[in-house]
Parts: sequence; C-alpha cells; structure tokens
Amino acid sequence: MKTVTVIGLGLIGGSLAISLKAHGLAEHIIGVDHSPENLGKAQELSLIDEGTTDLPAAVRRSDLVVVAVPMDAMLTVLPQVLDEVDQQVVIDVGSTKSMLLAAVAGHPRRGRFVAVHPMAGTEYSGPEAAVPELFTDKTLVICDAEQSDADAVNQVQHLFEQLRMRIEYLDAAAHDLHTAYVSHISHITSFALALTVLEKEKEEQQIFALASGGFASTVRLAKSSPDMWVPIFRQNRVNVLDVLDEHIKQLQHLRHLISQEDYPAVYQQIEQANLIKKILK
Amino acid sequence: MKTVTVIGLGLIGGSLAISLKAHGLAEHIIGVDHSPENLGKAQELSLIDEGTTDLPAAVRRSDLVVVAVPMDAMLTVLPQVLDEVDQQVVIDVGSTKSMLLAAVAGHPRRGRFVAVHPMAGTEYSGPEAAVPELFTDKTLVICDAEQSDADAVNQVQHLFEQLRMRIEYLDAAAHDLHTAYVSHISHITSFALALTVLEKEKEEQQIFALASGGFASTVRLAKSSPDMWVPIFRQNRVNVLDVLDEHIKQLQHLRHLISQEDYPAVYQQIEQANLIKKILK
Repeated sequence: MKTVTVIGLGLIGGSLAISLKAHGLAEHIIGVDHSPENLGKAQELSLIDEGTTDLPAAVRRSDLVVVAVPMDAMLTVLPQVLDEVDQQVVIDVGSTKSMLLAAVAGHPRRGRFVAVHPMAGTEYSGPEAAVPELFTDKTLVICDAEQSDADAVNQVQHLFEQLRMRIEYLDAAAHDLHTAYVSHISHITSFALALTVLEKEKEEQQIFALASGGFASTVRLAKSSPDMWVPIFRQNRVNVLDVLDEHIKQLQHLRHLISQEDYPAVYQQIEQANLIKKILK
Repeated sequence: MKTVTVIGLGLIGGSLAISLKAHGLAEHIIGVDHSPENLGKAQELSLIDEGTTDLPAAVRRSDLVVVAVPMDAMLTVLPQVLDEVDQQVVIDVGSTKSMLLAAVAGHPRRGRFVAVHPMAGTEYSGPEAAVPELFTDKTLVICDAEQSDADAVNQVQHLFEQLRMRIEYLDAAAHDLHTAYVSHISHITSFALALTVLEKEKEEQQIFALASGGFASTVRLAKSSPDMWVPIFRQNRVNVLDVLDEHIKQLQHLRHLISQEDYPAVYQQIEQANLIKKILK
C-alpha cells in the first residue's frame, strides 16, 4: 500500500499506523481525527506523516483506509468513507460487527469494505497509548468476507499476515457472540470489581497498600475508556446481557456453596475452573 | 538467621527459601514437607540445603521457622511447631489470620510467633513455581504484633525489610477484611469467569482462538490451586461473602443499566470505575 489513511488516532489506529510503517507496508500515512489535539499529538509522536480534517480528500488519495473510531462514530463515519471510495480498500477495526455491517449492507461500494477485528489492545487510550508490535502473534478476525470483493479480502489478509497476525474467518453474529465471552465480559467484571473496591475505599484508604499482582491483574481493564466501551455494550447488548447473566449465575452458585459451607463442592468448582489452563498458556 | 526451617515448599515457602539465601539472610535452609515428592523437587531445584520429614528436630535446630502450608494444615502445624520452640522465631505466611491467631492464642510460646502475610504470589503452585524476587517491592502485613515478643517482631521486620518489602501493621480482623477486597474476591471472580467461558466452550471451541490479553489478565487467577484457596474461603468466609454480595450487586446494577439502555448511566459507572487509576499505577 503506498498511501494509507487512518481515521481515529487512538490506541488501535495509532498502533496500526506505526506498525504498517515499521514493517514497510505503507509509504505515507495520512491521519484524520475530529480532535485537533489528537492530530497534533499523533504528528508529534510521528505516528503519521501528515494530518488533516478533510476526510474526503484523504480517502481519495489513499490505497487503504483504516477506520479506527469508537463504535458509535463508526456507524456514521464508515458510510461517509465508502461514499468517497473508488477502488480503495477500506477496513474498520471495530469490536462489534452485526450493527455496523447492517449499516453498510446496501452501500454501492460495500465490496471494497473488509470488516476486521484485531484481537489486541490495552487498557490505555489516545495517541500516546499507541505501541508498535501490538498486533504481533495476535488474531485478526475477518467477518462476513463473502460480502467483500475477493481482491480486497486478499489484500487485507496479506497485509495482516505480514504484521504476523493469525487470520480467522467468522460471520458477524458468531464474532459478536464470541467477543462477548472473551473480551466484553472481562471488561464488565473488571469495572464491577473496581466499583466494589472503590465503594469500600470511601471508608478505608489503607486497603490499597495491600493490593498486589492478582488484584492489579483482574482490575486492570477497569482503567478502560467509557468512550470506547459504552458503544460496544450498546451494539452488542443482547450477547453481553446473556453472558453477564451466566457470569452472575456462576458467582451466585459459588456464593451459595461458600455460604452453605459445602467446601467439597467449592473445591470441585475450582478444579473445573482450573481447566482454563488447557486453553490459556 | 543462621539456620532457617521452611515447612511447606510451595510457591511462597520455596520463594522465601531462595530469597533468604540469595540475600545472605540464611546460611542453611532445612525443608520440611509432607510430600516426599515436593521435598525431592525442592532439593533438585536447590531451594533448600537439606530435606527432612522430622519436623520437631528441624525446629529445634533452627533460628527461624517459616510455616508455609495451606491454611487448613496451618491450624494444626503451627501449634505443633510452637510446642518445640524455645527462643526461635516462628512466622506463618498465611492469607487469613483471625482463625489462626485464635488457634494459638493460649499457647505458652505464643510470643515467639509473628503472624505475617506477604502480599505477593502468582497463579502457580508447588516447588517449581518458586521464584526469587517474588517479594521485592511488595507489602508485608504483620498482624496483632502486640501479641508477639518485641524482639521477635523486630527480627521479622528487619528480615523482610532486607528483602525490600514495605511493612504494614494491622490487626487480624482488619487484615481479613482488606484481603477479602484486594485478593480473595479477585480469585472468586476469576474462577467464575473461567466457569462462565468453559460452560460455553462445550459448544464452541473456536472462542478461544479469539482470547487476547484482556481475557488472559482477568482469568489468570482461575489457574490457582483449590488446595490453597478452599481453606482461605472457609477461614475468611464472612468477609468473603460480604464482598461477594457487593460485587454481585455491582454486576447486577451494570446489567440493569445495559438492559434498560441507560447508556449515560453506564458511562458514569465506567468513569467511576476508572478512578482505580489513581490507586493502581
């Protein structure tokens, strides 16, 4: 790709910009952001070669357009981008897919759009959070590939393979269900854990002197931005509620067993939970 | 300390053994473990200088005795150790304190015992899990210090300061409440999260191809051993149930807001959870 436009210069957009450049996969990166502050920072940090607020002009000059804005903005920005597209390839990097794909289903340039989700991130946001190698050895999901032109899908797959990502193909509904389990629920439980402890902290400051690695690990995601996560919960609401119900059920079951002092059953539940070892190395 | 006996050569006992040796704080380490396999491994891994199953003899030859067995065994092993003690210093490294301190309250050698809890660990267990520097820059809680002889407390404080630990003094009841918040609840929520996802995994294997850093982080503690954790939940049951109730309440509140599509309120809750940033760097 000679010229790449990245719209939205946060953690994912910024990291993709520097990764493409570092791997020699882009010659010139144009950054577009509605925040002049983010645009300035992205230039200072050398994430991009030039910054502009003129989205249509940037799209027209590009071979690849990456839309990396929060999921609510995505619903309006992606159609705007496709309006300007001729033979360019367009990707989003969004965390939910069904609502977004419905929003562009009838677009005359739909074929140039490839829906992807790099399963990578951190709890930090904004251009300063961008890091190279964020995507290395992670999975890229390509959704509903049969709705995209074959040449566009091939280009996208080839590009992310060169970033050393594993490629998985899924339909949008399966993607949204799976990410509710392996990503969205982790964030909700982490937010709830932070709220639980902060509720207590009003009374007792000292508690945090004791917090060690285990607590930090489970509560890390609670630092994540509401600007990113509220639209995800909105767009994947049905799946998120399903998984959340199951999670609350599991917690209530453990609570019941501890309350009843049925420790052999608690032991068995923990042994069952330990099976996660087989899956997460 | 010239000679140190470590009873229980798991993650904490083993790590303490190598740390004391590495920092020049022990000349000779005697390992005691009810498992001949663990004892053999600890010798192979050079965690200890000699291994024995003769607990009374080891205690009598020692300047310091560390009891690092699971909390249920602790209730019987600690009094046995104190039965053998003259002027030696004895510490436990257990995760709950009230029940243990009640168990030795009337012991004639109670003064030689200092109750400590190093706020450090990993999700792994056994001698192979032992690592040097596990305790560096972590907090050591000393509980009910006024029940211990002043010289014993001073020796223990000095020892752990040389391992670069921060020392906090707490009474046992406060310790058990605080650890329920910053340690025990994280484990329960992680176990429940693993169970939630494993329940689903029966149907869908592919889900795990998508799991990335965020999921791994929140579910990491679900690998923790039931041999360690069931006794902790039993001995700190009242606090654990209180905190678990608060956590379930917070999850149900988030569920309600998402279900009612009250996204401004969800946003506000996440902003509130983000305050954890002020506390966890």
